[in-house]
Amino acid sequence: MLHIRGGTVVTAERTLRADILCDEAGLIAQIGPDLETPAGYEVVEAGGLLVMPGGIDPHTHMEMPFMGTIATDDFYTGTAAGLAGGTTSILDFVIPGAGRTLLDSWRAWRDKADKAAADYGFHVAITHWDDQVHQDMETLVTSCGVNSFKHFMAYKNALMVEDEAFLHSMRRAGELGAICTVHAENGDAVAYLQKDLLAQGRTGPEAHPLSRPPSVEGEATQRAITLAGLLGVPIYVVHVSTEEATNAIAQARMNGQEVYGEVLPQHLVFDDQVYTASDWLKAARYVMSPPFRPAHHQKALWGGLMSGQLHTTATDHCCFCKEQKEAGLNDFTRIPNGTPGIEDRMSVLWHHGVATGKLTPEQFVALTSTNTARIFNMYPRKGALAVGADADIVLWDPTGTRTISAATHHQNVDYNIYEGMTVTGIARKTISNGKVVWDNGDLRAVRGAGRYLERPTYKRQPRYPL
Amino acid sequence: MLHIRGGTVVTAERTLRADILCDEAGLIAQIGPDLETPAGYEVVEAGGLLVMPGGIDPHTHMEMPFMGTIATDDFYTGTAAGLAGGTTSILDFVIPGAGRTLLDSWRAWRDKADKAAADYGFHVAITHWDDQVHQDMETLVTSCGVNSFKHFMAYKNALMVEDEAFLHSMRRAGELGAICTVHAENGDAVAYLQKDLLAQGRTGPEAHPLSRPPSVEGEATQRAITLAGLLGVPIYVVHVSTEEATNAIAQARMNGQEVYGEVLPQHLVFDDQVYTASDWLKAARYVMSPPFRPAHHQKALWGGLMSGQLHTTATDHCCFCKEQKEAGLNDFTRIPNGTPGIEDRMSVLWHHGVATGKLTPEQFVALTSTNTARIFNMYPRKGALAVGADADIVLWDPTGTRTISAATHHQNVDYNIYEGMTVTGIARKTISNGKVVWDNGDLRAVRGAGRYLERPTYKRQPRYPL
Amino acid sequence: MLHIRGGTVVTAERTLRADILCDEAGLIAQIGPDLETPAGYEVVEAGGLLVMPGGIDPHTHMEMPFMGTIATDDFYTGTAAGLAGGTTSILDFVIPGAGRTLLDSWRAWRDKADKAAADYGFHVAITHWDDQVHQDMETLVTSCGVNSFKHFMAYKNALMVEDEAFLHSMRRAGELGAICTVHAENGDAVAYLQKDLLAQGRTGPEAHPLSRPPSVEGEATQRAITLAGLLGVPIYVVHVSTEEATNAIAQARMNGQEVYGEVLPQHLVFDDQVYTASDWLKAARYVMSPPFRPAHHQKALWGGLMSGQLHTTATDHCCFCKEQKEAGLNDFTRIPNGTPGIEDRMSVLWHHGVATGKLTPEQFVALTSTNTARIFNMYPRKGALAVGADADIVLWDPTGTRTISAATHHQNVDYNIYEGMTVTGIARKTISNGKVVWDNGDLRAVRGAGRYLERPTYKRQPRYPL
Amino acid sequence: MLHIRGGTVVTAERTLRADILCDEAGLIAQIGPDLETPAGYEVVEAGGLLVMPGGIDPHTHMEMPFMGTIATDDFYTGTAAGLAGGTTSILDFVIPGAGRTLLDSWRAWRDKADKAAADYGFHVAITHWDDQVHQDMETLVTSCGVNSFKHFMAYKNALMVEDEAFLHSMRRAGELGAICTVHAENGDAVAYLQKDLLAQGRTGPEAHPLSRPPSVEGEATQRAITLAGLLGVPIYVVHVSTEEATNAIAQARMNGQEVYGEVLPQHLVFDDQVYTASDWLKAARYVMSPPFRPAHHQKALWGGLMSGQLHTTATDHCCFCKEQKEAGLNDFTRIPNGTPGIEDRMSVLWHHGVATGKLTPEQFVALTSTNTARIFNMYPRKGALAVGADADIVLWDPTGTRTISAATHHQNVDYNIYEGMTVTGIARKTISNGKVVWDNGDLRAVRGAGRYLERPTYKRQPRYPL
Repeated sequence: MLHIRGGTVVTAERTLRADILCDEAGLIAQIGPDLETPAGYEVVEAGGLLVMPGGIDPHTHMEMPFMGTIATDDFYTGTAAGLAGGTTSILDFVIPGAGRTLLDSWRAWRDKADKAAADYGFHVAITHWDDQVHQDMETLVTSCGVNSFKHFMAYKNALMVEDEAFLHSMRRAGELGAICTVHAENGDAVAYLQKDLLAQGRTGPEAHPLSRPPSVEGEATQRAITLAGLLGVPIYVVHVSTEEATNAIAQARMNGQEVYGEVLPQHLVFDDQVYTASDWLKAARYVMSPPFRPAHHQKALWGGLMSGQLHTTATDHCCFCKEQKEAGLNDFTRIPNGTPGIEDRMSVLWHHGVATGKLTPEQFVALTSTNTARIFNMYPRKGALAVGADADIVLWDPTGTRTISAATHHQNVDYNIYEGMTVTGIARKTISNGKVVWDNGDLRAVRGAGRYLERPTYKRQPRYPL
Repeated sequence: MLHIRGGTVVTAERTLRADILCDEAGLIAQIGPDLETPAGYEVVEAGGLLVMPGGIDPHTHMEMPFMGTIATDDFYTGTAAGLAGGTTSILDFVIPGAGRTLLDSWRAWRDKADKAAADYGFHVAITHWDDQVHQDMETLVTSCGVNSFKHFMAYKNALMVEDEAFLHSMRRAGELGAICTVHAENGDAVAYLQKDLLAQGRTGPEAHPLSRPPSVEGEATQRAITLAGLLGVPIYVVHVSTEEATNAIAQARMNGQEVYGEVLPQHLVFDDQVYTASDWLKAARYVMSPPFRPAHHQKALWGGLMSGQLHTTATDHCCFCKEQKEAGLNDFTRIPNGTPGIEDRMSVLWHHGVATGKLTPEQFVALTSTNTARIFNMYPRKGALAVGADADIVLWDPTGTRTISAATHHQNVDYNIYEGMTVTGIARKTISNGKVVWDNGDLRAVRGAGRYLERPTYKRQPRYPL
Repeated sequence: MLHIRGGTVVTAERTLRADILCDEAGLIAQIGPDLETPAGYEVVEAGGLLVMPGGIDPHTHMEMPFMGTIATDDFYTGTAAGLAGGTTSILDFVIPGAGRTLLDSWRAWRDKADKAAADYGFHVAITHWDDQVHQDMETLVTSCGVNSFKHFMAYKNALMVEDEAFLHSMRRAGELGAICTVHAENGDAVAYLQKDLLAQGRTGPEAHPLSRPPSVEGEATQRAITLAGLLGVPIYVVHVSTEEATNAIAQARMNGQEVYGEVLPQHLVFDDQVYTASDWLKAARYVMSPPFRPAHHQKALWGGLMSGQLHTTATDHCCFCKEQKEAGLNDFTRIPNGTPGIEDRMSVLWHHGVATGKLTPEQFVALTSTNTARIFNMYPRKGALAVGADADIVLWDPTGTRTISAATHHQNVDYNIYEGMTVTGIARKTISNGKVVWDNGDLRAVRGAGRYLERPTYKRQPRYPL
Repeated sequence: MLHIRGGTVVTAERTLRADILCDEAGLIAQIGPDLETPAGYEVVEAGGLLVMPGGIDPHTHMEMPFMGTIATDDFYTGTAAGLAGGTTSILDFVIPGAGRTLLDSWRAWRDKADKAAADYGFHVAITHWDDQVHQDMETLVTSCGVNSFKHFMAYKNALMVEDEAFLHSMRRAGELGAICTVHAENGDAVAYLQKDLLAQGRTGPEAHPLSRPPSVEGEATQRAITLAGLLGVPIYVVHVSTEEATNAIAQARMNGQEVYGEVLPQHLVFDDQVYTASDWLKAARYVMSPPFRPAHHQKALWGGLMSGQLHTTATDHCCFCKEQKEAGLNDFTRIPNGTPGIEDRMSVLWHHGVATGKLTPEQFVALTSTNTARIFNMYPRKGALAVGADADIVLWDPTGTRTISAATHHQNVDYNIYEGMTVTGIARKTISNGKVVWDNGDLRAVRGAGRYLERPTYKRQPRYPL
């Protein structure tokens, strides 16, 4: 039971001086100026700090089996690192393995996630279409608290879904009141270019961005939007990294289509020069998909966030250590794709976005928490500071600084893509379900304290394009 | 002192079941489910109704002297009609006459508006540039509660401002923490086309849209945005009516520029066929600027509202009766420009926007109230349902219907552009500063009850384009 | 041996008064004002007429086996009808059947085309990828006079090519100095929508356009351009029918990519209202792919032609009679896709394009003949009026009129999509290889007179996007 | 009388091996392979060379009075330098001084140009509107061989034309069959920014580009196109230097409007870094308007040229020496605006455009000569290699190189903006009206040999946007 006292509350809508009481149930009980401290409440001093909804990361891959290995941050270590950075909830992905049903896979992921230190939910990936999938989608939505499905247009011969199957899945999700998300890169083109580059002897990480150029993402984004538009269902595009994709999303929205876009902070601050490092490992550590882009794409992503045409920030947090990355020493296509970052998302966005005047603090809250909660139907339980909401709160020091380093981070991985970056804007304290779990350097994450987030269906009416 | 009981509260952010208490001071004292009725409070039953922030119309012209006559709705009759439709605040315009200072004009308008039945504020028009203007802008901002200035790129030799003067004004407003608004039509082109059409003997109202084609608005919008962008200051474009202007705004926003767009419901539902009526008066009554457009422009405007690239709805309420319109019987350029509509804005937008599935109820609140309050810095006093906010509230019946007619409307004008349109979605009760002023057909507007809205400056940092 | 006397020569570049001599070899021997008639030359009076290069139709399907039947115009009747309309060359398509090699198929088509009355060449379709295809492409280019290959992104489970195979084919064509063409519609989406519509009981021709909406073409066009851009090879998009596809082409060209677009006159003059006819047959006769579109797309196509961003006009001439169309009486997906039109292409384009002031006569020549000759490397043998060029010439009466009708046309099919349309601009005489083959109503087409056009490779350097 | 033997003729349409005979009248008498040398003809060996139409520079300012001084290249020295670079015609500008009529000014310019060594014509500037202008335009068109008029949207209080006057002029030109050209920069914005920068103490040349940023050109281009579109008349935009302007032109063309764009090679190869030179004079020598731009604009300009949305290349040749430039030592707004370049235009375009694979040789001819001849109605007298055309021919060595330097150039100015640039692609010989005037380093320009080009009106029908 906490009394957050003397802080400045910032939500997606407004900023005001107010105290907050968090009750025994871990909910917000009262918000108002200069509240009395009830008996038995601990006072958390928030003077000079911004009191914001805890961050939600809608795109993580904890302990994911991928490319022959397993991501090193598990649900405990990964969510704990998130708490240290101000993130109090995640949406992770159930990726059905070959021959396993959606439902079995979801159960397996539930088991793995039991150890999470923060609340979590799941998107479930659809990689093919048949009657079982059709039926399992309903079960997941009605009985398992899943209201979002993921589709990969990339990773041919692995996770890639054909357009016709994608259409079936979107139609089904629409009927069930769920939303579809998509990784938009043309998998055929990537497969072709990978083979072509390898055949030319281009085996190093610097070939990675060449195998998935910006237009390959722009094309697939356009295609996904077109397919969703045929059915009049909403679509959420994960990790938008290019000007082309941003423009496709904005254009569709101007035509009245319901499209959402997600941005990773790393795409806002790194460009494709990261792949030119002479040190193989240094370059390989930045291998993720979509890759880092020529710098002018960053301008488009910022513009999308500033204008409200891109909506959320995520990390695609996926940790692979030196030995794992080295699986691709002689073949860049075997470097496990992924970068860490759940701990740094909020600081990096504040530093480069708010401190530079591009975003207001209210937009920051929307982009790190509230919009995600709304799109994935967790609002106002999550993403809000409101009476009755979960007491997931971050006390943000807008002028505090820290220097990011693998030496000090809490992620279970042996490097940090932001190594050496000094950021302004840091989480002083993080409160999860009414408990202080991060206190200015002291991480008090509790294994298993995280709860599974059942997300109800969203009553959506198909919004046919004008 | 009111207890609004049993309703569904809808704000720009969320929808929830809650009661509201309005205190003696006309403020919202409490919001929550199933509140007790305090002693001395009147119960207002809101079962089955949506309880929303009262509408704000950011663009009206009450009793405005224009084109040799005076608009017939005065500040009392006009605001009263607004209350009947759910609108509880207006922003009107101070238009300095030839030889009068900004300050004198503002005082004159304050006097005229004293009789208003609802709260009101003023934008002040800048039509030329000199040291007096430079000085008066500061006085208006610091001492008179004005934080927005208006510029006309149309009406050559009357209100039109040259680009260089416009730049001076925007720079000055930026320094003072005020925002500039603009009527974007190329006045030179309009003047040329008007003369050309008259010379061809095209004197009827059907020549009006020909004298200000869509591209003339698109051009000026682009120009205004460019000029604002040079200075890194925000700009608000009034009555956006074309695809071209919408796209210009969206594009600038995607480039990181701070641009806002306002839409009039009449542009969403009427097209340029209104000018082809064989009855002169019928056509003349639709003469306003910008004129009604070919129908495909409506798609763009809806898209802008749906995607968040256009932000507010207004009416440009400006009433001229038969005799006044007839000043232009032989010359369309002498027809006083203007259409009424303050009473119908909200119903028309609900009927064509929410009932059709284009907009959510939350978007409706944002577009009729909250966004305006934010942009013009009245939030959360206005535009919100929050403890401490002004108790300006509308009890909305989402399924109630009414047929719009001059025979029954409360506007002081002898026609209604929506005559005969049956709309779904109506204001059952309107509460202004804690008093019920409209009760299902009973208009209890009080002359002089409206208060002048002092709007503080907005601490804006110039947002330079990326 | 002909002396074309007194006419006005119009080419893609200029208009001038000049006579033309066609020699014994069927070539143009001389061009100049007021030439003497050499001994043995027949004088063809061209006073008041425009003397233009004979039309080239780059997209026909004579006697094509398709959807279980065979198109009724064979290479003789079809080319003869072309001559009657001013078209003196065609490029038809070799469509390899299941299990047949490219080379075998090409030989079979050569045999069928032996009876042609006008010159002809072939595009060869690539529908899958393997080593045999890789090898046959080289043989076709180096030994068979083929320099263009066709790809279908539509017709799933029949002709549709996967993106990866498409990339292989484009790379191969690029190496060989050939150009790739593409039918751009998303075959997965079409297949999905067809099944969905049939499942809803939508079996009539009015469901045809719903099964392949404009965005399905826009998407595929964007994708084809993206894939070609990855390889830096040119791409030619057949039958562009939408605003979306036109914009995609124009945008890519502005980025420095080499992209060409073809338009069918029928898409310029018909819209999707053709499918609403209550008479089944009337509607079914307009079933072709891509289908006729909402009218606003026509504006985009004209804009593309006028601005030089679309380049050629073709017919996709493919004739199916009443009994054939009736295969789809109970299932629109079984209506053989195709419309006739080779005889009317030039008149329809002149009437709607030149007579209305949209296009100049020089642009008309470019769009009906010269651009095609250049893109497919037959220039200046075809598409030019120049000494040494083939004497394929049309004497055009820019003010002559005719009313199009199946009762009078020369196409071997029982209807005409332009039935009853009176057009201004007609072929008075057509000269093929120096012989008058159409003389103001007298069709003198000779079975077998047409020659196979060997088209050399084009020395192209990949033009990588900027 | 010349026999150009053994060369490869390149026109805008095609490339072929052919000889050319130039007759006594200075006209092309014959073109064909392996011609006999007639008696009295001098043989010019063209083996290994490309024989192309002489260049036409549609934008020069010889001995122009501007900003208190006079450009140093006069009509003789400037045209002679052009001949050395392969340019055989120019279109210069009559700029009426204050109080002088169009007609008087045209006569004065005719006198000045009498000494020209190459053929020349004039655009006449319209800077205000009154009855005299209305009348003089007719005289100029009908009696003086002028078919193009120029408008400045920049240079406020000097040459700048108001939008309404611009509309009058365009309407008048349209009636007369002339074409309007425009310098598109917003003069109000430039004036504002210049004063603002000077007030900040920004007096050096590095402030020049800041006083006319890219958006200022984009805005004015959009506006000029809009105004022309209102009247349905064509418009030619001079020195397009930005992505924004290029896109505006392309978009208008796609809407069916007749718009042409001109590019200066210097904008293709220099960016705004030229203004950062620490040496004042070095930076000042690049002061011209529009200024050099951030590098990404070059991509757009190339794309426009490659796709046919931009049409001509010019130089805006305007020479000011050290002493002249130094008039602005303490105030960048007093630096005479202008850069030299008539001698280098063709080589720079070949080197950066053709040698890099962006443009074909045929496109090079179109962009340096033919398109200009067509747009300004000199074709096929100029811009063509055709029997009867003026024998203005350049023998181009596509692999020859030279290093550009003021030490060796023939322009009458003390610097060269391309100083030290080694270009591939040079004029070996230049033939003007049948005479060799440049022979591999030997400049044989004859003072007064140039003739005034009377350009007839162009029968244009207004092309109303679709």
